[in-house]
Amino acid sequence: MKIFNSETRVKILALLYGREFCDFNYIREKLNLTSGNLEHHLNILKKADLIEEKKTFYNNRIRTIIKITDKGKEEFKKFLNEIIYLSGEKNVN
Amino acid sequence: MKIFNSETRVKILALLYGREFCDFNYIREKLNLTSGNLEHHLNILKKADLIEEKKTFYNNRIRTIIKITDKGKEEFKKFLNEIIYLSGEKNVN
Repeated sequence: MKIFNSETRVKILALLYGREFCDFNYIREKLNLTSGNLEHHLNILKKADLIEEKKTFYNNRIRTIIKITDKGKEEFKKFLNEIIYLSGEKNVN
Repeated sequence: MKIFNSETRVKILALLYGREFCDFNYIREKLNLTSGNLEHHLNILKKADLIEEKKTFYNNRIRTIIKITDKGKEEFKKFLNEIIYLSGEKNVN
């Protein structure tokens, strides 16, 4: 499974890249995904060690928190910088 | 066929985005693709009107020139800026 052969996975990683963590529902709403679709892509990203998932309690409800791993940051940055480099734009840090 | 569900197509568009045109062999070598693989992706991009292809003569040989269309520039910029926006980085122009 090639991670970046999915616009949705690229966008999930982008969203997580700039944030300490994201709530499952926040990602779902922000990227306009169904829960099933988001779960599918999160599972692929988890298996590749690019993200971590934690269940916490918040207002007596289970809350799913998703965090990008160092490997995830690395891979996403590499992907983004390669595209930017190819297009002749300046790199991001 | 979702255009951006392929890392290779994203990179082809990135390469063409910053250049007036590219030679078929230049793209193939730059992205380390086989001719068959590159042709496959170029056909998808052509059908979506994101690129144009021209055959010219150069040193008595047929040379294939690929150019991104205005629609291609638009779609690529939209894709790239959305990723950059989601990741919290600054947009490219």
